[in-house]
Amino acid sequence: MKIYVFGVRGGDEEAPLKNWMAEHPEVEVGFTHDILTPDNANLAKGYDGVCSVQREPYAREALKMLHDYGISKLSVRNVGVDGFNFKDLNDFGFTLTNVPVYSPNAIAEHASFLVGRLLRRVPEFDDKFRAGNLKWSPTIGTEIAGKTVGVIGTGHIGSVFARIMQFGYGAKVIAYDIDPNPALENLGIYVDSLDELLAQADIISIHTPLAPQDYHMIDADAISKMKQGSYLINCARGGLVDTDALIAGLDSGKIAGAGLDVLDNENGIFQKDFGSFDAIPNEKFKNLASRDNVIITPHTAFYTKRAVHNMVYEAMDTQIKLLNGEITKNIVNTK
Amino acid sequence: MKIYVFGVRGGDEEAPLKNWMAEHPEVEVGFTHDILTPDNANLAKGYDGVCSVQREPYAREALKMLHDYGISKLSVRNVGVDGFNFKDLNDFGFTLTNVPVYSPNAIAEHASFLVGRLLRRVPEFDDKFRAGNLKWSPTIGTEIAGKTVGVIGTGHIGSVFARIMQFGYGAKVIAYDIDPNPALENLGIYVDSLDELLAQADIISIHTPLAPQDYHMIDADAISKMKQGSYLINCARGGLVDTDALIAGLDSGKIAGAGLDVLDNENGIFQKDFGSFDAIPNEKFKNLASRDNVIITPHTAFYTKRAVHNMVYEAMDTQIKLLNGEITKNIVNTK
Ligand SMILES: NC(=O)c1ccc[n+]([C@@H]2O[C@H](COP(=O)([O-])OP(=O)(O)OC[C@H]3O[C@@H](n4cnc5c(N)ncnc54)[C@H](O)[C@@H]3O)[C@@H](O)[C@H]2O)c1
Ligand SMILES: NC(=O)c1ccc[n+]([C@@H]2O[C@H](COP(=O)([O-])OP(=O)(O)OC[C@H]3O[C@@H](n4cnc5c(N)ncnc54)[C@H](O)[C@@H]3O)[C@@H](O)[C@H]2O)c1
Repeated sequence: MKIYVFGVRGGDEEAPLKNWMAEHPEVEVGFTHDILTPDNANLAKGYDGVCSVQREPYAREALKMLHDYGISKLSVRNVGVDGFNFKDLNDFGFTLTNVPVYSPNAIAEHASFLVGRLLRRVPEFDDKFRAGNLKWSPTIGTEIAGKTVGVIGTGHIGSVFARIMQFGYGAKVIAYDIDPNPALENLGIYVDSLDELLAQADIISIHTPLAPQDYHMIDADAISKMKQGSYLINCARGGLVDTDALIAGLDSGKIAGAGLDVLDNENGIFQKDFGSFDAIPNEKFKNLASRDNVIITPHTAFYTKRAVHNMVYEAMDTQIKLLNGEITKNIVNTK
Repeated sequence: MKIYVFGVRGGDEEAPLKNWMAEHPEVEVGFTHDILTPDNANLAKGYDGVCSVQREPYAREALKMLHDYGISKLSVRNVGVDGFNFKDLNDFGFTLTNVPVYSPNAIAEHASFLVGRLLRRVPEFDDKFRAGNLKWSPTIGTEIAGKTVGVIGTGHIGSVFARIMQFGYGAKVIAYDIDPNPALENLGIYVDSLDELLAQADIISIHTPLAPQDYHMIDADAISKMKQGSYLINCARGGLVDTDALIAGLDSGKIAGAGLDVLDNENGIFQKDFGSFDAIPNEKFKNLASRDNVIITPHTAFYTKRAVHNMVYEAMDTQIKLLNGEITKNIVNTK
């Protein structure tokens, strides 16, 4: 069995891929650091299947080349498949798989650390520290213990976040989900509506997918229903929060702080190096990022060794299953 | 009943003190922002008891003046009583109380956030962010889940930290205590020696007092017994860690990172404003602080609204008990 792997990031993916290869001497693996393009698709010639990951759209021509080499199984090492034109996949008869869940802990832990950094006013302490001011007063912090934490969406990630807050930090957790998680229902944490959650929570963390009807779930109206001085965490999808409404909420003090791993308009800026902060071509981003009660991380919540290990292993294992004609729950519906 | 309160910090103590006053209209309270000195001890004239807090030593003359006004009950709003010469207290017949426990959660939460900031390489991401680099690769993080966390000392604070790590983050917690905590013993987390803990833990957090025999508990010998690439957290007392040995451990890579809320030689520098980082007169501090795998917080772990509230309330409540001749567990043995 022969699998060709595109877009292997040297900094983090190569090590787990080599581990996987060592554990699977029966599989012949070729790989490149470059992403799949018409210029290098020929590298996969003679292989049975392909594994890849990239942020850039997949070129129809590259897919056609793979098809011409007799390749019809494609496994991506991430969740998102918006880089594909499904028509291309169907025209060339591809079966596509992704890795829908790789490490809920990575994102839930990151969200909890954003809460901690906001409540303990780390950006302000960092500024003082850099200026040689080692006084604590008056930069007083707040504890999570005893606070009401509202979790919107209690699936793979939200349920771990709820556990960290309740059983770890001793917060009072309330949750809202359109489809409550049976594993959590006996904790008695669910409220009946988003409005109820917004009205009661001191800290709100969003963990839902971005369904079309949930675009700007947190808008000016939702913010108006929050408690004065609430904290908002978004490690889910940028489109769930209306950035303008968030900025207004921060200006008015309704929102005491925000921890954002995703932004409505992150695509042009995250995962790019602009050489200087001022050169980042996004005024709303800079407005938020320059506040000392906002912490932005550039979509790094998922970025742990365990997550990347799982992405590589799961995609490669899935590719083997595909090639063996076995069943896998990771097949993407491209119809 | 009349209580005079010295050294009330405007930034954080005044608000809870005023709340306490509003809840105790029967008690006449006078207060000043200034700490107790011979120059202002006369403010307490006519009062029954005194409540105070200060980092500076208490002047014998000031205590004598209080004594001359008929005051013999003194409640401090913190733990430490090293600012007193016990002979002065005995000569003037003072009963002294402190606040031995005010909010274990404050310190345990802070320690857990230091873990998070180290594992997710926040200082490196912060540097990238300020330089306009919004790429995540290659700054990959590590999750707490699944890691072995070693807790040294499982009293008020260590037990909360252990709970956060085990029940919140899903770490494997091991603990060492010279006097195991019965409330934790049934969790099966205790190992039999410090050496065992050092050998097994990926992350080590210290939560013991600084008894004379525990000075430099973590020295070169202890560090040599740690796993390669361990993380060390100290939110207890600076003297528990040998700073030179820590620096050597960081240099060799034996220690992958350190989160320090206390330092062996913090007294000359913490709680001071030097106007610039370079002006901080402590080379070891600057050595540590300039590393991107070390996070120093200037003894702020305790500094939360709840902790300060509890310090003010507990000290005032204790002073009332003293004046009423009631029993309080907070009396300091000054003999
Ligand atoms: N920041 C990152 O690095 C990163 C990484 C992975 C996933 N994510 C995002 O995290 C989010 C959660 O992922 P997951 O794996 O936990 O998803 P999941 O499908 O396991 O859980 C989502 C939960 O949200 C609920 N839900 C859906 N719509 C809702 C609504 N309008 N109101 C309340 N609840 C609603 C669902 O019933 C489900 O229980 C997604 O948006 C995902 O894209 C972010
Ligand atoms: N950073 C801060 O802001 C801050 C604030 C408050 C307290 N502290 C410090 O935190 C530490 C813990 O405080 P606490 O209230 O939990 O104390 P505690 O007395 O409740 O618990 C201490 C525990 O350590 C154990 N112990 C003592 N010596 C030991 C040894 N050599 N090895 C293993 N275990 C040992 C004791 O048996 C006890 O269980 C103290 O050093 C205290 O000064 C720091």
